[in-house]
Amino acid sequence: MKPIKIGIVGVGKIVRDQHLPALAGNGDFELVCAASRNASIDGIANFATIESMLEGVADLDAVSLCMPPQYRYDAARKALEAGKHVFMEKPPGATVREVEDLIDLAEQKGVSLFASWHSRYAPAVEAAKEFLAATRIRSARIVWKEDVRRWHPNQDWIWQAGGLGVFDPGINALSIATHILSPMYVTKAALQFPANKDAPVAAEIDFRTAQGTPVKMELDWLQTGPQSWDIHADTDAGEMVLSSGGAKLAINGEAVHEQPEREYPALYERFAQIIRDDHSDVDLAPLQHVADAFMLGRRIAVEPFYD
Amino acid sequence: MKPIKIGIVGVGKIVRDQHLPALAGNGDFELVCAASRNASIDGIANFATIESMLEGVADLDAVSLCMPPQYRYDAARKALEAGKHVFMEKPPGATVREVEDLIDLAEQKGVSLFASWHSRYAPAVEAAKEFLAATRIRSARIVWKEDVRRWHPNQDWIWQAGGLGVFDPGINALSIATHILSPMYVTKAALQFPANKDAPVAAEIDFRTAQGTPVKMELDWLQTGPQSWDIHADTDAGEMVLSSGGAKLAINGEAVHEQPEREYPALYERFAQIIRDDHSDVDLAPLQHVADAFMLGRRIAVEPFYD
Repeated sequence: MKPIKIGIVGVGKIVRDQHLPALAGNGDFELVCAASRNASIDGIANFATIESMLEGVADLDAVSLCMPPQYRYDAARKALEAGKHVFMEKPPGATVREVEDLIDLAEQKGVSLFASWHSRYAPAVEAAKEFLAATRIRSARIVWKEDVRRWHPNQDWIWQAGGLGVFDPGINALSIATHILSPMYVTKAALQFPANKDAPVAAEIDFRTAQGTPVKMELDWLQTGPQSWDIHADTDAGEMVLSSGGAKLAINGEAVHEQPEREYPALYERFAQIIRDDHSDVDLAPLQHVADAFMLGRRIAVEPFYD
Repeated sequence: MKPIKIGIVGVGKIVRDQHLPALAGNGDFELVCAASRNASIDGIANFATIESMLEGVADLDAVSLCMPPQYRYDAARKALEAGKHVFMEKPPGATVREVEDLIDLAEQKGVSLFASWHSRYAPAVEAAKEFLAATRIRSARIVWKEDVRRWHPNQDWIWQAGGLGVFDPGINALSIATHILSPMYVTKAALQFPANKDAPVAAEIDFRTAQGTPVKMELDWLQTGPQSWDIHADTDAGEMVLSSGGAKLAINGEAVHEQPEREYPALYERFAQIIRDDHSDVDLAPLQHVADAFMLGRRIAVEPFYD
């Protein structure tokens, strides 16, 4: 099969750290161009805007959209209108409604739309899902605590309205939780907003499944020292801990699954698959939970944050 | 046909003002019971809880859920599990996800679920929809400004997290706008929170349709004097104003449609219809826009509010 000619829009840290190596190792794709205001990628055609890229590379098949979520919709619409398959970095948009609109447009145009939830492809996630499916969950706890200064230094957009703040990493946890737990919904939330920021720095969210199982989520962006990206479940078959963002699984303290992470290679394998199979893969549940938490949640003002 | 035996849960102002007269005038329904913590309805069986009502009235067919949205889900689930048709006052829930769960449950149980958006049944709404469908809209403006002290005196729940604040009336505007305008999505929002409240007292929301038409929404809960519940559209066929919450329509300043409002009678006619036709009617768009506005919106602290 001919490789899928792909272009990247929004060249930043995540592109250099993850997308470029994943694409370089995947024979299904050929990276032919990029569009970015202030950055470029060596050895391929570079453009300042997605419009000029779509015009300039006539035989392009697909695009990866890696800009901040507040700018994703317009770019996605242009790419879909031009008949390209679209890979969207997480979160897929700044609102749920705009993504629903893109799903309709992709269907009209007969192209594939992919809302990539990279943490869902972490190596131990499927093993955790299998373990939980075979038992009864009494309660679950999602603990996602990291140091924003280390992982998002001076990223202004993430603190702006629509940037989601601590829900930017938190949505990774939700992408796993919505995959391995029963359908759940927010019952209570408290969001801490630094006095000088438009996005939360910490949050506590209570969920409940339809069966009444409580699920508690703790998000904190000021965690120095050891970082936590863990989902705990108390089950009839023992205590499960899915840790390191989905990389490691332990049952009753015993490690049962630990493999090197290869999330982005798996994401691009999935994208090639849905293009071949002529369908889309857009799960809105993680973003919907975030929107619901913002709507239902109490806002608590906390001290200003400075990078 | 035998009348549908119905019970009301959550007996407050909206029930006495609207539901009771509407049911009294509709031969399709027979009001047989009510459940409320502190109130009762003369001449029918009264219960303290929905559980005791569902147990106590074996041949009940349907329930109307009129409690605050934060308590709607549990009651709806119990009623659906018991095989009853469910009418939900607006908004249908405190989160979008929980309502999606109820839609699934209603389908499993083979009963009808109705998310009632009463303003959508205001007398001039259909005429406005027809007018707009036949022209091109250049821009639209939604102005919903009322006096909370007059319409919601001492209603604590409305100011609590999940009570939606000024979006409680604002969602009425959205239920009309999503019915008469093209699909749109939030691009920007600013929400004003009184320092002592967990829900906004005012908001400005910018929407855009997929075609790029700008729609501006202004919500204010401190409007004394004349009250505004208006949707303006600047179109190729002239200036449209749908005012008085959907009761009056004017084109280029000339009144073209003005009839007495009968929203709740129309809602119960619709509910009887979907029960007869064996389907549900749950449009999540108005609530989704509110969740999106909370997620994407800037929060602005304003002076405390006292009733």
